[in-house]
Amino acid sequence: MTTASSTINAGRLNRTLAELGRIGETPGGMMRLAYSPYDLQGREYAMGLMRQAGMEIRVDPAGNVIARKAGTDPNLPAIALGSHTDTVPNGGKYDGALGVLGAIEVAQTLAENGHVLRHPLEIIIFTNEEGTRFHRWLLGSRAMAGLLEPEDYDAVDDEGVSLERRLSDVGGDLSRIDQARRFPGELAAYFELHIEQGPTLHRAGTPLGAVTGITGRYVFKVEVQGTANHAGTTPMPDRHDALAAASHLVLATQRLATDAEICRVATVGNIQVTPNAVNVVPGEVTLGVEFRDVDTNALSAAETTLRRDAAEIADANRVSVNITQVEAARAVPMPARMQGLVAEAADQAGLAWESLPSGAGHDAQAMAAITESGMVFVPSVEGISHSPHEFTPPADCANGAQALLNILLMADARL
Amino acid sequence: MTTASSTINAGRLNRTLAELGRIGETPGGMMRLAYSPYDLQGREYAMGLMRQAGMEIRVDPAGNVIARKAGTDPNLPAIALGSHTDTVPNGGKYDGALGVLGAIEVAQTLAENGHVLRHPLEIIIFTNEEGTRFHRWLLGSRAMAGLLEPEDYDAVDDEGVSLERRLSDVGGDLSRIDQARRFPGELAAYFELHIEQGPTLHRAGTPLGAVTGITGRYVFKVEVQGTANHAGTTPMPDRHDALAAASHLVLATQRLATDAEICRVATVGNIQVTPNAVNVVPGEVTLGVEFRDVDTNALSAAETTLRRDAAEIADANRVSVNITQVEAARAVPMPARMQGLVAEAADQAGLAWESLPSGAGHDAQAMAAITESGMVFVPSVEGISHSPHEFTPPADCANGAQALLNILLMADARL
Repeated sequence: MTTASSTINAGRLNRTLAELGRIGETPGGMMRLAYSPYDLQGREYAMGLMRQAGMEIRVDPAGNVIARKAGTDPNLPAIALGSHTDTVPNGGKYDGALGVLGAIEVAQTLAENGHVLRHPLEIIIFTNEEGTRFHRWLLGSRAMAGLLEPEDYDAVDDEGVSLERRLSDVGGDLSRIDQARRFPGELAAYFELHIEQGPTLHRAGTPLGAVTGITGRYVFKVEVQGTANHAGTTPMPDRHDALAAASHLVLATQRLATDAEICRVATVGNIQVTPNAVNVVPGEVTLGVEFRDVDTNALSAAETTLRRDAAEIADANRVSVNITQVEAARAVPMPARMQGLVAEAADQAGLAWESLPSGAGHDAQAMAAITESGMVFVPSVEGISHSPHEFTPPADCANGAQALLNILLMADARL
Repeated sequence: MTTASSTINAGRLNRTLAELGRIGETPGGMMRLAYSPYDLQGREYAMGLMRQAGMEIRVDPAGNVIARKAGTDPNLPAIALGSHTDTVPNGGKYDGALGVLGAIEVAQTLAENGHVLRHPLEIIIFTNEEGTRFHRWLLGSRAMAGLLEPEDYDAVDDEGVSLERRLSDVGGDLSRIDQARRFPGELAAYFELHIEQGPTLHRAGTPLGAVTGITGRYVFKVEVQGTANHAGTTPMPDRHDALAAASHLVLATQRLATDAEICRVATVGNIQVTPNAVNVVPGEVTLGVEFRDVDTNALSAAETTLRRDAAEIADANRVSVNITQVEAARAVPMPARMQGLVAEAADQAGLAWESLPSGAGHDAQAMAAITESGMVFVPSVEGISHSPHEFTPPADCANGAQALLNILLMADARL
């Protein structure tokens, strides 16, 4: 095989990462929120690079950017590479961006080498992966995989703007969004390069990770109803303090993944308190709770325990607690064949690798519904992500893009 | 003495309470926030009633409304009655309003009876008692009592508007605010009628309370610094979860007034979390903590315990905790002579009374710095206050105003 002789241009990849990283950069981190002007600028920047790599671009009705280069065999389905360029508020420069720019670097390398694949090659920039907008994530990849839910269509963001309007801003069209859907057989495979966003590879000093699967995620809205009252005049035994009860709930959630070891991680990331004044006993609190595990049964067990704990906390604190599940994403395993390609690509590049699950969600988990999907991870320094301190060294970024090229060439030869 | 024969008009008092209670009324409660258009409307309404009672009105440089009626002896200092008409967000119709409208009813009754006091009579509507604006409370009464702090002058509210601008909206003038100050000897006494805002009188079925003193209040800003990180990829042992630590702090604060019985009440009413997204481990939390007790030593002991607990919580949760005192109001006892007048006034009216401390702060505690001050309480149903459910029955409101008239007549005769 001649495939191992193709080498990506590490300098160019890291230059494009730096350039994209200046679009939407603020002192507090990246602000390329989906559908924002910065997001549009970021997409335009990436589309310019796609054109330089000789690819033809279309925007599907879900707002996904799809760049395509024809293969030598007109009867073969495309192999797709992809990720996203939107960020969380105050996010980092690598989450999503590396997967898109790494894929473009792969296409540019092939173009420069005059190497035309047998399969058509697609590079996809999915919209609103982070779900910052509408609090509904993987919106582009779920549209492509036929996984939209009824609530997605009516989504209105925190600024009161509808999905219809936001989609039109990026060249999408809600009235035709079902046409963004693609079906099994249309794609031969989907591969995504991504930073790990956790500390495993960085701590082990391992440059590449073969992702075994993407963890499931249960998300709940937990509403605590107490009674607002004067903080100076209300005796302690008469209080129905929603924040005191919520504090017990935060700690009960944490215990699910620590002392109780029921699921891998459990987090309360979000809290709203009413009236939230220093001299008023809190009357209402809403918490955003999530747990994640590669075993969906662990998520169900954690939910059962949380509901039992919540009932006890409600009684003890003289408040009511209402728990509503707002998301139930099952774990998505990656096929062994896809994991094997990652391992082989790493071996070809002379780089150590290890198998690990993904704690974060990715577009690959939606795409897994319509095609075999694989993911390759590179280290995140200290595991920091969704933060301006997110960092992956240039050499690790280059290793990831090289692995992606090696994977693509093997897949093109074998699929 | 002929004083006991004067009787206030209960129907009129409760009609004015209802009318003022419609100014700034929303489905979620009263919104007469200090310096807002509703606050101005409320003051205008009260000033109209003051004029009907034959009083002359001025607005001092601190924005306080001061209505005055001359007495028969030009050499005597004024006796002042007062309270406030601003409300907390989503507040009630009685807190402050009863003290102002009860005082006006007293003046109206005197006017109708052709009863001119020996002393000049003043009725004062203090600005921004609640401190919702600028988070700096008792602003008007502290200005009058010479208790402003350097930070008061530079205050900017949550909307970014300065005290200077807010004061000018209500007829005040920051550049001359020091002229709002009054000195010992200028007033013979200050009396304030107020709802209890706690459950003591309501539970006991006692119509009147003689306030023994106003509890001290320590307020702290507690800042928890952790590390924001991805909620899916960050292993539990690697987290520096500011909200988990803050939850321990909320419960430690609560324990100061429950299990530990160090101070009477202790509350966390206020919390801000950054970035406050369901999929991000919280990186920073700020809590608003307060404790109150009639014994200032109890407040110091509670502070010591909170600081010790906070250090342990910081260590155990791998975060840092910084505690800053933002207010240290010492307990203010009411003079025995003032308490005695309340008791005697109740006896004259044939109403039961009991002595009790005030758990809430009041303008009377500032006024106590420049004149002998007394307070009379009426019941709050279920002790609910700072809430749209705040309620004091019409008969109790009338009892309070009658007691205030009786107190005034005795004070006028004796002081």
